[in-house]
Amino acid sequence: MRYEEFTIEGRNAVMEAFRAKRPIDKLFVQDGCQDGPILSIKREAQKNNVMVKYVTKERLDQMSETGKHQGVIAYAAAYEYAQVDDILQAAKDKGEAPFVFLLDNIEDPHNLGAIIRTANLAGAHGVIIPKNRAAGLTAVVARTSAGALNYTPVARVTNMAKTIEDLKKEGMWFVCADMGGTEMYDLNLKGAIGLVIGNEGEGVSRLVREKCDMIASIPMKGDIDSLNASVAAGVLAYEIVRQRRM
Amino acid sequence: MRYEEFTIEGRNAVMEAFRAKRPIDKLFVQDGCQDGPILSIKREAQKNNVMVKYVTKERLDQMSETGKHQGVIAYAAAYEYAQVDDILQAAKDKGEAPFVFLLDNIEDPHNLGAIIRTANLAGAHGVIIPKNRAAGLTAVVARTSAGALNYTPVARVTNMAKTIEDLKKEGMWFVCADMGGTEMYDLNLKGAIGLVIGNEGEGVSRLVREKCDMIASIPMKGDIDSLNASVAAGVLAYEIVRQRRM
Repeated sequence: MRYEEFTIEGRNAVMEAFRAKRPIDKLFVQDGCQDGPILSIKREAQKNNVMVKYVTKERLDQMSETGKHQGVIAYAAAYEYAQVDDILQAAKDKGEAPFVFLLDNIEDPHNLGAIIRTANLAGAHGVIIPKNRAAGLTAVVARTSAGALNYTPVARVTNMAKTIEDLKKEGMWFVCADMGGTEMYDLNLKGAIGLVIGNEGEGVSRLVREKCDMIASIPMKGDIDSLNASVAAGVLAYEIVRQRRM
Repeated sequence: MRYEEFTIEGRNAVMEAFRAKRPIDKLFVQDGCQDGPILSIKREAQKNNVMVKYVTKERLDQMSETGKHQGVIAYAAAYEYAQVDDILQAAKDKGEAPFVFLLDNIEDPHNLGAIIRTANLAGAHGVIIPKNRAAGLTAVVARTSAGALNYTPVARVTNMAKTIEDLKKEGMWFVCADMGGTEMYDLNLKGAIGLVIGNEGEGVSRLVREKCDMIASIPMKGDIDSLNASVAAGVLAYEIVRQRRM
């Protein structure tokens, strides 16, 4: 198990953290903030015996990693990365075929947050990210995930291709998003599935693509090359959702 | 017709602007940059009689609105907003039923750029944004649109609800994304359609929602409230694409 230092910023993110019973170490509130959402957060803090510290806006600006603290920053007990097995177990516990996102070097923390948010809402059981190069679980990721990071387990692995091989032995199929594949509507995306999303600029790496059973393409009618990585992940994830509910 | 001042930043965005024959007034290149993409851009500049000015990284950093100039910034002849009629004409010229995005106060320029990018690739004929409050076509939007802003017309209107009314007289149907609607798979989204995407926090405004013929919901299996606005736009747009190609 691995831990990381962590701050949670912004009203929704802090409120979601309390709701999800995440252990908060300390809460910083901007001096003079007295509106409804802040009062709700302070009530939650009191209920959970969390110390509240009042600070100036300048101090919060300094502490903020996202630049969007909205008058409130929480120091949380650090996020705990899940193990890949925890993700499979979560699927088993729900009696569902596993549905997992694998992110092959997403670098932009906004994309990573948005994709974890999508994974949560699409009913995926977890997200797997690589240990190197790629974005990790920072405050920006937590904020753009809109609370999803509290619910959707994220595992980190050293070797994505090796992880795919291991999961194939568990009966999972893998589809990666890439140009020149089969249109996603024509693929069978039901069952135990891993959705592989590539790097923003370079796409899916060769080693990982070779391990995939299917290459899915999103139909492109326009003049430019590709969708934003988090939009592409959303479009493909919801094609999987559509097929799984049929 | 309206014009705005404009800079184009980053290698892909500048190269795309040349390819799309956008009139560039001036090109700023970082001193000492000699790699392939920069040389290609300089060749394009020469071919198009665009003046190239060499400046320090510090100077580019100062000029940059996005913070991601990658050693190159172009001053472009300002973007020209389209008229709503231009968008309908574009559909007519292609012999297709109109497919238009209407953004009801998208505030984050990254979302606006990603949505224009999606509109282009989903084959929409244009995007309509409101004149007030919402994000306009800034350099950040141009960059996150990955060049789509050069191809997909964007019109600005004073009154979104009135625009919807006018377009209904042209035979268009309107669907907005909101919770508590019908699942998108169960709606008929073929034909001349306007896809309405609401504000990041508040969703679609009441006045605009009342004008819509259908309310579409994306199935949500997770623990949090909503998808990122640009992801939701992508998921809905591609449900429309799926239905239109059947």
